[in-house]
Amino acid sequence: LTYNEDESEAYRAHDASTHYKYRGTYWNEGKREIMIRYIQLALIGLIQGSVAYFCNVACHYFVERKFERVASILESGSYFFAFLSYFGHQLTFAAFASLAVMIEPMSGGSGIPEVKCFLNGIDLPRINDIKTGLCKVIGVVGSVSAGLPVGKEGPMVHSGAVVAASVTRSSVRDDKARRDFVACGAASGVCTAFSAPIGGMLFAFEEGASYWSQSVTFRTFFCSACSIATLYTWNSVGSSFGALGFDKLFSFGNFIFEGMQASYSVWELLIFVFIGCMGGMIGAIFNNTNEKLTHWRIKHVNHSKFRRYLEVLCISSIVSIVCFGIPFIFHECIQVPDTDGMSQQQVELINRFVQFGCPEGQYHPTASLFFTDGNDAIKLLFHMHEHTFPEKALLLFFVCYISLATVTYGIAVPSGLFVPSLLSGAAFGRLFGNLIYKIIPDKVAFSNTYSLIGAAAVLGGMARMTISLTVILLEATGNEQFVLPLMISLFCARVVGSLFNTDLYHIHIHLKPGVHFLDGELRAISGHHDLYAGHIMSKDLVFIRPIEKVATVYDLLATCDHAFFPVVDTEDRDILYGTVSRHILTTLLQQRAIGVAANPSASPNRNIVQNHVTLEPNCNYVPLVPYKILEREYPAYTPISEIAVSDNDRECFIDIRPYCNTAPHTVQETTSVRRAYETFRTLGLRMLLVVNKYNQCVGTITRDDLTAEA
Amino acid sequence: LTYNEDESEAYRAHDASTHYKYRGTYWNEGKREIMIRYIQLALIGLIQGSVAYFCNVACHYFVERKFERVASILESGSYFFAFLSYFGHQLTFAAFASLAVMIEPMSGGSGIPEVKCFLNGIDLPRINDIKTGLCKVIGVVGSVSAGLPVGKEGPMVHSGAVVAASVTRSSVRDDKARRDFVACGAASGVCTAFSAPIGGMLFAFEEGASYWSQSVTFRTFFCSACSIATLYTWNSVGSSFGALGFDKLFSFGNFIFEGMQASYSVWELLIFVFIGCMGGMIGAIFNNTNEKLTHWRIKHVNHSKFRRYLEVLCISSIVSIVCFGIPFIFHECIQVPDTDGMSQQQVELINRFVQFGCPEGQYHPTASLFFTDGNDAIKLLFHMHEHTFPEKALLLFFVCYISLATVTYGIAVPSGLFVPSLLSGAAFGRLFGNLIYKIIPDKVAFSNTYSLIGAAAVLGGMARMTISLTVILLEATGNEQFVLPLMISLFCARVVGSLFNTDLYHIHIHLKPGVHFLDGELRAISGHHDLYAGHIMSKDLVFIRPIEKVATVYDLLATCDHAFFPVVDTEDRDILYGTVSRHILTTLLQQRAIGVAANPSASPNRNIVQNHVTLEPNCNYVPLVPYKILEREYPAYTPISEIAVSDNDRECFIDIRPYCNTAPHTVQETTSVRRAYETFRTLGLRMLLVVNKYNQCVGTITRDDLTAEA
Ligand SMILES: Nc1ncnc2c1ncn2[C@@H]1O[C@H](COP(=O)(O)OP(=O)(O)OP(=O)(O)O)[C@@H](O)[C@H]1O
Ligand SMILES: Nc1ncnc2c1ncn2[C@@H]1O[C@H](COP(=O)(O)OP(=O)(O)OP(=O)(O)O)[C@@H](O)[C@H]1O
Ligand SMILES: [Mg+2]
Ligand SMILES: [Mg+2]
Repeated sequence: LTYNEDESEAYRAHDASTHYKYRGTYWNEGKREIMIRYIQLALIGLIQGSVAYFCNVACHYFVERKFERVASILESGSYFFAFLSYFGHQLTFAAFASLAVMIEPMSGGSGIPEVKCFLNGIDLPRINDIKTGLCKVIGVVGSVSAGLPVGKEGPMVHSGAVVAASVTRSSVRDDKARRDFVACGAASGVCTAFSAPIGGMLFAFEEGASYWSQSVTFRTFFCSACSIATLYTWNSVGSSFGALGFDKLFSFGNFIFEGMQASYSVWELLIFVFIGCMGGMIGAIFNNTNEKLTHWRIKHVNHSKFRRYLEVLCISSIVSIVCFGIPFIFHECIQVPDTDGMSQQQVELINRFVQFGCPEGQYHPTASLFFTDGNDAIKLLFHMHEHTFPEKALLLFFVCYISLATVTYGIAVPSGLFVPSLLSGAAFGRLFGNLIYKIIPDKVAFSNTYSLIGAAAVLGGMARMTISLTVILLEATGNEQFVLPLMISLFCARVVGSLFNTDLYHIHIHLKPGVHFLDGELRAISGHHDLYAGHIMSKDLVFIRPIEKVATVYDLLATCDHAFFPVVDTEDRDILYGTVSRHILTTLLQQRAIGVAANPSASPNRNIVQNHVTLEPNCNYVPLVPYKILEREYPAYTPISEIAVSDNDRECFIDIRPYCNTAPHTVQETTSVRRAYETFRTLGLRMLLVVNKYNQCVGTITRDDLTAEA
Repeated sequence: LTYNEDESEAYRAHDASTHYKYRGTYWNEGKREIMIRYIQLALIGLIQGSVAYFCNVACHYFVERKFERVASILESGSYFFAFLSYFGHQLTFAAFASLAVMIEPMSGGSGIPEVKCFLNGIDLPRINDIKTGLCKVIGVVGSVSAGLPVGKEGPMVHSGAVVAASVTRSSVRDDKARRDFVACGAASGVCTAFSAPIGGMLFAFEEGASYWSQSVTFRTFFCSACSIATLYTWNSVGSSFGALGFDKLFSFGNFIFEGMQASYSVWELLIFVFIGCMGGMIGAIFNNTNEKLTHWRIKHVNHSKFRRYLEVLCISSIVSIVCFGIPFIFHECIQVPDTDGMSQQQVELINRFVQFGCPEGQYHPTASLFFTDGNDAIKLLFHMHEHTFPEKALLLFFVCYISLATVTYGIAVPSGLFVPSLLSGAAFGRLFGNLIYKIIPDKVAFSNTYSLIGAAAVLGGMARMTISLTVILLEATGNEQFVLPLMISLFCARVVGSLFNTDLYHIHIHLKPGVHFLDGELRAISGHHDLYAGHIMSKDLVFIRPIEKVATVYDLLATCDHAFFPVVDTEDRDILYGTVSRHILTTLLQQRAIGVAANPSASPNRNIVQNHVTLEPNCNYVPLVPYKILEREYPAYTPISEIAVSDNDRECFIDIRPYCNTAPHTVQETTSVRRAYETFRTLGLRMLLVVNKYNQCVGTITRDDLTAEA
């Protein structure tokens, strides 16, 4: 993707005419366009908010139904038929989810790596198509309903990006604006997934930080506000007089304790440091295992659609067996606690306990974790009294669930990672809290706090984000007191995790073939201190001249697939004249923007072309093909193979100068790689030309060259 | 400030030797340096947290004392003596605060504009000196205790920056690292001022967004966590077993209502939009008036220290008269409400009511706003029941207070703007809420919510930040429910305010002479569409040659004060060889890194120099003066006037090539100004060279040239 403005004569003429249009009256074209842009942003927010809301509702409905049926069979005492029904439901949903991915393979997985790539400037095919978005959303409803250990947060991010790209498809004419919109869309996706508007913005910022500008901040802000407003509005439908209730949105429930007392002491921060480190370790193991699995999968499964489908079914079956079998084997019933002295929230949560064959008034602790909706399990872990779950159940749940999640991520269903990490982390944290409580009772925080910190630590160890996760989790808990513990545990998780490997999204990005992701900073800097741009550039330059024969251009385009070509003025000391992009050349050929054929009997004569367009260097002549036409086919241009050039035309000359970017970004060949990398990345380039000290082009640097060395 | 790495031979040699040191063992120099860096960050957090805490405590103590004394005189019934005592106290404190500014003029005002300038790359003298920081902190205690309508938030930001710069003074050797540390320091300043760690980070990010990188995010995160932990720790001193209490920190009090019900309905968001717009308007008027006043002040007051001092005393007197006089004139007593059915917090706040001569069991509403500490007044406005303050009192307070704040900002005391804006905004919002309540009773939110939104709107209208203010206010309220109303009102305030003028900090930056601030985006873009870099560059190039006579260099340095010089190879087609900075040249002269004197009888002979250092272009010869020595005097270098060069030396040659940056950032003269601006700003350059197509340097662009056109 080209995140840089063109600087050719043609673009300037276009730009000048646009500005001309904008001049004058107070309410002018420019203002109108800004208006339209904001309306589009509002629309993105609106659509994404609605998508997220209905996706939420659908998941909720399906899961509820599933468990209702199974529970009714269970009540009649027949474990076997209950299992069959459960198994059948889960399998059906999983098959359905996988079907969506079969239709559109890009819609598998979490979607966050894909969005990251896009923001980084990598153009993956079909990533922002409406079809992909639809499959993703429908698929994720299926996979969540199937009870797989997946969340719908990653897919929501992807869906936000798709919505943004789709809404602006017809009106946005360059990659840069498109990227900014996609960043807004991704932010609103996060924002709707967690009902965390600030967290969403920070997520988009933490992922796309290198290209950030203040106006993008502002637009993301607006878009997030719109989407969260939509979500609230949907959510208040039905309640009297538009009063808000937050019950149907993603949240951790109400983390507010009595009085203004804090829920932890200062010295407990040290314990949180420890939990953070543990979480980092767990995350690192998770990432490592999942990487190995994905390698195996790429080799043995991914080449055939049938195998991928089968894999989904297998895993779904395993999940069903585990989730049903473990509560069945470790059967245990505990008295439901008294509701006296409980907060209103806890009283409500009591209904979330799962009986699983226990008599009335009792609940089954293991089943309440395994055999229920993920969100309910999280809330139970976060809010119930410390003796609610025995340590054995917590340990069992933690181990099984995280293993299942490891295996699941990467199969052919849309699947987010946040909920599984949070859930297993919550179990881990609670377990830890209970143990601490046994050692020093009465002096430590409620184990709920530990549960929250554990969830943060495991998630942080897996995703390695800091500021955005802090804010997301803070917004989900809604209690500012936890800001410091969350910061501490996320920080430690990241530091410890980074000792072993990188975050899961990165791992998956690097596993994609042919994707060259530019990290925030150059890795392995120590190796680069005396490596120059001249060392890493591609040296076999394919260039064209300012005025070139059509035949040459055509053959060049047909034989080599570079996206940009330097234009070298061979008449004038071989200096660099500019660059021209492939799609401009093809469009020129398509439009037959060519000079009169040279007299074939005479030797090719420059003068004929010179008569055609003026050659004075400083004269702003109107280009033959206006910029509007050059970019008409954006974003998908006709490939050269579909353009036919007649034999007669082949002998003509084509004047590329008006379409050249005459001020390309260049570096000297003696520039260090570090500086070249920085320039490339901060300016969001697609190609950097390397010149020698006479401004003769000696090579090119693209993404490929930079990552090959990094 | 130079935010770019050098690329000279000397630097490379230095870099290579550093890397060489780092190689090998697992625990190496590099790791050690990272450790040290984090320790420094922790230290910054620690110091700034302590500074903020003690500053808080001191203000609290002084203000408390002042009001205690006055109240005791008041009780004895003598209004006149009470006024005298009040007046005297206030005047003394103001005189004290102003004294601090007299000692160090840079410590006046809010400090945020100065920090913004620094992050933007402008080197204001003495901005980060310890003396400035001390004066600022001591002064702000004085000015807050003096009851002036100022806050201590801006000064805290400045103090954070000073702390960061001071802690790292001895170990940080380049501007870039220093900037990153200062950004961290500023973040921790905000963080301690509002106890809002995330808000602090976002503040630093919103101000320094163009140079942001992921590692800076991470470091800021760490630094904020440290400072907030320090603050909490200090705060928990004295409480049993380190339990946290948040009472002594900045906060808006507990914004939590009963149940999980939200405190507003969806349709009320429209009202918030309206409040936001009003706030934007108020902010715009505020900014405009203050700008006019500052102009006047620059002309008539600022040239003499005595006048500035007198001004402070005058304004302090006016403030005292108003704050005492208005409650005195509009005397009114209201029954203190019953404590039944009140939250614990409200019960506590009842003690904050001011009697001002009212009988026991009653309070004076106007005095409770005017004649009290700003933080208490804010809490009363935010939390008490809607009939607490009559509309008349609110209106009166709003008008008087905001006028006083307008007049005060800019006088010679350290003064923040957040608290005044919040306070007047809160009064405005509450007024508005009460009016709405009269029209449609029972259906709207508690007027407290309106109060909060009003505060946000006025602050937003003045400072025009969006995301960071949202988060700061959200963290201060601690209730996630308000995120959407806050976002909406801040957004509207900014949009409406921007129709009229820019934010107050910008206004004050532009009023500073000789400061060229680079905004996020080029203003007045419409004027630039066919302006090239060649048009705006400085054309009278002062250049030197790779090998130059000492006399020439010395005279050049003495006669012109540019910071960088292009090195032009006059032997080789006049092409650009590189750039060299002024301080390197002076250091070279100082170190006598010069060749053998040319035989004065013969014509100057190149060969003599050539014997001295090898001339093969690709040979990495060890430079005569190592990089360590070149940067030894950082950040303040000896001026050329203090360096004496003997007559004999003047005839020698000096070889600049090893010290040249051979890969300077250049642009073609045909580059559009827009692109040049973007390159300059995103890469954080200090000088951009303009070259023609033969790579001959034709001009230079610096900050001055870019802002002259913008
Ligand atoms: N005009 C050129 N002459 C010679 N080598 C080139 C030229 N353009 C690109 N290259 C080299 O070819 C390789 C691939 O270039 P390509 O144009 O595919 O860039 P890209 O960034 O991968 O673009 P795309 O996203 O279209 O694949 C790189 O190593 C690059 O340096
Ligand atoms: N070597 C040079 N030859 C000619 N003009 C120059 C040269 N260097 C700078 N200038 C011009 O002189 C003006 C001021 O330059 P100066 O070196 O003071 O830069 P600056 O960014 O203001 O640095 P400082 O922060 O040290 O003041 C600018 O208009 C710049 O274009
Ligand atoms: Mg390629
Ligand atoms: Mg200057």
